[in-house]
Amino acid sequence: MSRTVIRGGLVITASDEIHADVLIEDGRIAALAATGTPAAGSWTAERVIDATGKYVIPGGVDAHTHMELPFGGTFASDTFETGTRAAAWGGTTTIVDFAVQSVGRSLREGLDAWNAKADGNCAIDYGFHMIVSDVNQETLKEMDLLVEEGVTSFKQFMAYPGVFYSDDGQILRAMQRSAENGGLIMMHAENGIAIDVLVEQALARGETDPRFHGEVRKALLEAEATHRAIKLAQVAGAPLYVVHVSAAEAVAELTRARDEGLNVFGETCPQYLFLSTDNLAEPDFEGAKYVCSTPLRPKEHQAALWRGLRTNDLQVVSTDHCPFCFVGQKELGRGDFSKIPNGLPGVENRMDLLHQAVVDGHISRRRWIEIACATPARMFGLYPKKGTIAPGADADVVIYDPGAEQILSAETHHMNVDYSAYEGRRVTGRVETVLSRGEAVITDREFTGRAGHGVYTPRSTCQYLL
Amino acid sequence: MSRTVIRGGLVITASDEIHADVLIEDGRIAALAATGTPAAGSWTAERVIDATGKYVIPGGVDAHTHMELPFGGTFASDTFETGTRAAAWGGTTTIVDFAVQSVGRSLREGLDAWNAKADGNCAIDYGFHMIVSDVNQETLKEMDLLVEEGVTSFKQFMAYPGVFYSDDGQILRAMQRSAENGGLIMMHAENGIAIDVLVEQALARGETDPRFHGEVRKALLEAEATHRAIKLAQVAGAPLYVVHVSAAEAVAELTRARDEGLNVFGETCPQYLFLSTDNLAEPDFEGAKYVCSTPLRPKEHQAALWRGLRTNDLQVVSTDHCPFCFVGQKELGRGDFSKIPNGLPGVENRMDLLHQAVVDGHISRRRWIEIACATPARMFGLYPKKGTIAPGADADVVIYDPGAEQILSAETHHMNVDYSAYEGRRVTGRVETVLSRGEAVITDREFTGRAGHGVYTPRSTCQYLL
Amino acid sequence: MSRTVIRGGLVITASDEIHADVLIEDGRIAALAATGTPAAGSWTAERVIDATGKYVIPGGVDAHTHMELPFGGTFASDTFETGTRAAAWGGTTTIVDFAVQSVGRSLREGLDAWNAKADGNCAIDYGFHMIVSDVNQETLKEMDLLVEEGVTSFKQFMAYPGVFYSDDGQILRAMQRSAENGGLIMMHAENGIAIDVLVEQALARGETDPRFHGEVRKALLEAEATHRAIKLAQVAGAPLYVVHVSAAEAVAELTRARDEGLNVFGETCPQYLFLSTDNLAEPDFEGAKYVCSTPLRPKEHQAALWRGLRTNDLQVVSTDHCPFCFVGQKELGRGDFSKIPNGLPGVENRMDLLHQAVVDGHISRRRWIEIACATPARMFGLYPKKGTIAPGADADVVIYDPGAEQILSAETHHMNVDYSAYEGRRVTGRVETVLSRGEAVITDREFTGRAGHGVYTPRSTCQYLL
Amino acid sequence: MSRTVIRGGLVITASDEIHADVLIEDGRIAALAATGTPAAGSWTAERVIDATGKYVIPGGVDAHTHMELPFGGTFASDTFETGTRAAAWGGTTTIVDFAVQSVGRSLREGLDAWNAKADGNCAIDYGFHMIVSDVNQETLKEMDLLVEEGVTSFKQFMAYPGVFYSDDGQILRAMQRSAENGGLIMMHAENGIAIDVLVEQALARGETDPRFHGEVRKALLEAEATHRAIKLAQVAGAPLYVVHVSAAEAVAELTRARDEGLNVFGETCPQYLFLSTDNLAEPDFEGAKYVCSTPLRPKEHQAALWRGLRTNDLQVVSTDHCPFCFVGQKELGRGDFSKIPNGLPGVENRMDLLHQAVVDGHISRRRWIEIACATPARMFGLYPKKGTIAPGADADVVIYDPGAEQILSAETHHMNVDYSAYEGRRVTGRVETVLSRGEAVITDREFTGRAGHGVYTPRSTCQYLL
Repeated sequence: MSRTVIRGGLVITASDEIHADVLIEDGRIAALAATGTPAAGSWTAERVIDATGKYVIPGGVDAHTHMELPFGGTFASDTFETGTRAAAWGGTTTIVDFAVQSVGRSLREGLDAWNAKADGNCAIDYGFHMIVSDVNQETLKEMDLLVEEGVTSFKQFMAYPGVFYSDDGQILRAMQRSAENGGLIMMHAENGIAIDVLVEQALARGETDPRFHGEVRKALLEAEATHRAIKLAQVAGAPLYVVHVSAAEAVAELTRARDEGLNVFGETCPQYLFLSTDNLAEPDFEGAKYVCSTPLRPKEHQAALWRGLRTNDLQVVSTDHCPFCFVGQKELGRGDFSKIPNGLPGVENRMDLLHQAVVDGHISRRRWIEIACATPARMFGLYPKKGTIAPGADADVVIYDPGAEQILSAETHHMNVDYSAYEGRRVTGRVETVLSRGEAVITDREFTGRAGHGVYTPRSTCQYLL
Repeated sequence: MSRTVIRGGLVITASDEIHADVLIEDGRIAALAATGTPAAGSWTAERVIDATGKYVIPGGVDAHTHMELPFGGTFASDTFETGTRAAAWGGTTTIVDFAVQSVGRSLREGLDAWNAKADGNCAIDYGFHMIVSDVNQETLKEMDLLVEEGVTSFKQFMAYPGVFYSDDGQILRAMQRSAENGGLIMMHAENGIAIDVLVEQALARGETDPRFHGEVRKALLEAEATHRAIKLAQVAGAPLYVVHVSAAEAVAELTRARDEGLNVFGETCPQYLFLSTDNLAEPDFEGAKYVCSTPLRPKEHQAALWRGLRTNDLQVVSTDHCPFCFVGQKELGRGDFSKIPNGLPGVENRMDLLHQAVVDGHISRRRWIEIACATPARMFGLYPKKGTIAPGADADVVIYDPGAEQILSAETHHMNVDYSAYEGRRVTGRVETVLSRGEAVITDREFTGRAGHGVYTPRSTCQYLL
Repeated sequence: MSRTVIRGGLVITASDEIHADVLIEDGRIAALAATGTPAAGSWTAERVIDATGKYVIPGGVDAHTHMELPFGGTFASDTFETGTRAAAWGGTTTIVDFAVQSVGRSLREGLDAWNAKADGNCAIDYGFHMIVSDVNQETLKEMDLLVEEGVTSFKQFMAYPGVFYSDDGQILRAMQRSAENGGLIMMHAENGIAIDVLVEQALARGETDPRFHGEVRKALLEAEATHRAIKLAQVAGAPLYVVHVSAAEAVAELTRARDEGLNVFGETCPQYLFLSTDNLAEPDFEGAKYVCSTPLRPKEHQAALWRGLRTNDLQVVSTDHCPFCFVGQKELGRGDFSKIPNGLPGVENRMDLLHQAVVDGHISRRRWIEIACATPARMFGLYPKKGTIAPGADADVVIYDPGAEQILSAETHHMNVDYSAYEGRRVTGRVETVLSRGEAVITDREFTGRAGHGVYTPRSTCQYLL
Repeated sequence: MSRTVIRGGLVITASDEIHADVLIEDGRIAALAATGTPAAGSWTAERVIDATGKYVIPGGVDAHTHMELPFGGTFASDTFETGTRAAAWGGTTTIVDFAVQSVGRSLREGLDAWNAKADGNCAIDYGFHMIVSDVNQETLKEMDLLVEEGVTSFKQFMAYPGVFYSDDGQILRAMQRSAENGGLIMMHAENGIAIDVLVEQALARGETDPRFHGEVRKALLEAEATHRAIKLAQVAGAPLYVVHVSAAEAVAELTRARDEGLNVFGETCPQYLFLSTDNLAEPDFEGAKYVCSTPLRPKEHQAALWRGLRTNDLQVVSTDHCPFCFVGQKELGRGDFSKIPNGLPGVENRMDLLHQAVVDGHISRRRWIEIACATPARMFGLYPKKGTIAPGADADVVIYDPGAEQILSAETHHMNVDYSAYEGRRVTGRVETVLSRGEAVITDREFTGRAGHGVYTPRSTCQYLL
């Protein structure tokens, strides 16, 4: 039996902040004891980590990543190997990535393909959501099987007609099925049919710059789709999780639904909290770095997102990590913003940016852990293995230095992409050491993990329903 | 050093449900260890409590009791001795009672009086809020001092003109002060000026039965006062805690305020969740047993309260325990409902009734602990001493049998009052054993505590602000 | 010059109730004079109508009829001849019917076909809206031309996929065009894509009775489509008129939009105000008589409709007159509710039913005229020719006996359909005499008009914008 | 019999815009005839007014003036003689002024006093509301009598403690009484109790400038009082008219109430539509000219007021005309903003400023007449004598030149006050000629009226209820 003890830190979970020592036995949290008590003093271990003056927090759970995603004729630049290593650097110890069903093919086929990509390559644990591109009788039956196997969430798109798009009938059918089998529908909520009209019109007017990406994907059309998804879920009697909420008007729809007591949940991402259309408007095609969907919004929207995170109208912050290099990838859209691959790097930055939000007074320390670790774990059936520090949980633990300063930059980051969306931004707080099931993946800011340590993690159904 | 270990139970806190053994050293939680691990196995203790098949939960925190309260020419029938003993029987290990300032006297004088009543008499720990009946320059200065001493919350009344009533100017001044000194204003939100007109008119019409108590204290007038208190708090830049919310319309006002991101909080009570105007209308003056203010509402209001508890638009369930015997006390109001002493017994029933809500599917187990233990502790500055089971916390622990059945009745309850508001109600779940700072107050359903074990507990300021 | 004078009645318009004589010269209102004044006394005329004790009101404007509409393999049973005659009997002197574009054909072709059906056959004046079934570049250009010719409103369907259905892109394009050319988009707001899933599922479960028509066409899906149409109109910067609003939830969406100051309008119909799902559930397939879309709703929805009519969140009551005989037509849907032709007769009953609403206290007399005459005329560019009694207006005038009683029945009505949706209903108030441009169409309850008196009436653009 | 005919103008009422000649017989509108018809051509008259190219509109009804009001130790500077003459210059032909009950005295006594002030002095017709300062059993009985006599509306104040202030019980009693006798409660909705605390605190901080008047009378406290008045009216089952609404948040409360179908009405004033806190902040004590209550608000509030006027969440624009000269009167508040007499001149400017709103596109021409003439007449029981041009109505008619330009200035206005709140503002549109009951009060911009022409006009109860 291997034993590690973490001494003297401030253990922060979604609900508690305690001065406690943490005992790890064979990769799991065995016990917590108040620092300085006889109980704590009695522990011996092969490895002792001194966390004095540091935070001891659960490893982050990033419930929205797209490693190696094929999009617009290219692939997201992070593989499962590079991407999960970067995640670890950033204090994230679990990702839930998206396997993709191709139109005309089975869910199984897509899931097998994604399992093959990830297997043996990951530095940290991972699970899969399933993108459902083709709802039909076979697909619906497969959904039942996947839920039983631990793929308990299914993403549909109200955008991207001809690619991932599902019409309202397909959405309703999938929701009805999930109401029965316990699956959770995750929705990309933008009215893609209407947006494509605006895209065509903008291009016809010669509006090709990246900033027009933000103008055509209107906040009202995100809010509309959000409302529609909520009503369809209500008809189906199913819960709903709306991904990458960016518009104040969309938050308002979620708020309204929750005020009615519906099981409706919302995720936002660091880019919507820290970036804006000002970035999309950067000259020399630099704006392309910030092209993602839903798009960045004017700064005024940020207050609504922070408010939603404080009052729990938004429950989760994920990254939607989907990096494309500026050179050679983003550049595919020079002269036509609609050809810019949609996505941003971020898996390495999330925990730090949200800690900065603590420093800035937007959220409390416990809420930081709740939205970044505990709730995503509960939402997607990983609790209590992941998302907390409690006896019995996996020993996914981060030693976090709350006082260290760092400057975010592509020079220093570990994601496989040639730019940082937060280039030059100074933040307070830094990951020092990361344990994944008790093994040190990052040790005093050196990578000590390995591809293949991370294992596929089947998930139970949503543990977050009202 | 005394050591106790609780073995084999399901430890439930506001955030976790874990199979863990709990180690208590010298009255505090020293450590938790996953049941069956070497870490747990290594513990030795003088006393071992077998909690197999049981819940191990934090002792309840009842943030709203009125022991020995003078009201309408009589006194609440529970003393601090009888009331805290009954609380312990019901799994509650901390109460926050209300010291009362008399008009024309100082806060200090009122606090001293209440300290004298409680001192040496309590079976469990206790703190005090302060009822501010007379806002003036001296009172405002005293508020600062009291906050420093651990009386960090102040109750004002928009009802009861001539007794506890504060006008909007007095409320605004107290809120402004609390915005500065960190105090939290607790509000009895009913438009008492308007209600008194309706009372007078009802009595003039010969409407003297207890049920008219419910008719004149209109839901709209609770909602109005709630809205007004919110706006005054907004002007003052102060947080607000609204006590005993009973009307759906009042919940709606809280919801609206929270949707705007305001630090506005709401408490409801078991009587509003489980009783209704049907009870007030019981014949032979039996309705008087259910006379309290805010009054019981028609059953239709209950759904809004449960919804609010699920979505956190209501955060706390307290009892507003304020018992008056039917014989001799409630009877003061025969022939004139306005003379019925306002109040219900409940301090012993709260944890059980809320567990019944878990059984009935209204709330989850964790939410049960959150609204009954953790949030009241945070709201009133008692965390992490109270409200959770975590290393370092006071060992206020309840061993709860979730499968036991019991029938609530005045025959068997321990409150000093001659009726039960829930007479004959069958509930599932029962307190087995209760520890207060590690000492057994209830042991296998026998009272093993003593008057004077409980100590006054000063409180920090509100830990629940957004 | 022909002169008619109407003496002694109470002239009611949308804004006034005055005791005045009305002078008609050559088919137009020439003057109004206070009854009994020298000015009134000086008038001479060939024809004098004594309206003492009667109301003198503008002829009704029914902005939503479907004479001879092809639907589900059959045709609405009223021709323009029988339908306009029945309209006159009911006090309506103008209809705006819907010309239909077939998919793949031009608007012009549809309009020509409908002109041919109506020309020479109508007892009263008429205009056309255009149903746009196929939005494309040619159609958009034709819209501009039609607006100039006096067809200034265009209907689109979010229901009936494969028939009239437009997707959100087609709707957005048509709205953008109307924002430029002054046209008004009228929307059938039901999510037909989702409804068709529910229809298929219901039929698969053997739920074939007419009442299931009401169950599958859910209120939430009307509200959803209403919200979506509003958002698309907001994106396009265009006004919007939602037809046949039946669900309280849809009224709420309109209310919300109007509270934001948007040019969003709503129409309801007598069937939603006076009938309910109780009718749809009538045994022996009788429910089929009440099958229309949007469907009848549970009675509880009616209060929201009346409220909306009072507070002007709904502005117009039209009939959506689209009759199908029970025998031979409604019967097409025996064993499959989805094959029942959608539609009800009503053009003859509207003015009377709304007068009954005056009698019942739902609306005032002036509001009766406003929602049934003045606002539809303004909304669709017919004012001040139609919809009021004012100097210069067409002499479309009804002498209405407010005290007469009648029983609605297929026995006595003049619509070409074998049942009445209001069979046996007793109402107070009855049309006595009807003038169309000064000619008596109904004279003391005899038909004195003729096919071909009514002429096509081109319309200006909407006169009702905020 | 005297006869006047107005030829060739565009007659505009709340509902119609018609090219019509208007025949006046003996002071009343006898007839309207379409211009150029034989009916119109047949008229002969002693006096013919050529209105070609002009508007012919109903005389304005200003439902909120305070001639000679005692306030803060001084008197409003316009007498009934000067004030009504100025009103006539501005196209207003009816005012409803406020008689004042003094605390401890009867309503009758106040009404008699005000009748004496007005009798024989007015250039135009007038009526009275009654300010109820002292609700008691006697007052309540007097309310019944006054309603019968034609004083059908009663104003209460939630502000000005110690002067006009009524507490919530007094308000509730008066509302209950008005629910029975048909009276309409008009409410000054500001939480004066809270405001007085803020006033005292501001002065204690040395904030004495007029702009602090705007800061202490917070929008939230107007909204609060508005909400409270609505709830009290709902409890009483009475309609409610809120005077001088200025804050966006107060409009929102009215909107919410109307969305629930309540008979709740709102009035705003030109100063809130055209002026702002920028004016209050003018240097050299000039801000004092703009001190009124409710106070001017930041410019951003204006959009909500215009929206409310468009969607009928606000129904009336009155002036709250209450002038105090800058020299000698406003100056009473130098060094203490709370001593500045509250009020602005405006009775002469209202019709012009609202016509400017037509020119600016805020409202339509008909809406101009509706909010300034027809609705105030209906709201206060003066219809159809006042507020419209219709056979039978009083011949209160304005010939308005819509193209004339003028510059508002104290140099040229006729109000008895030494400044204009709109000094130097250029507006388009001007009153040319004004008839009051057929007599020319203003003739081609000369005053041809006389003190004593105007008569007291008893009023029926509110004609505007839903």
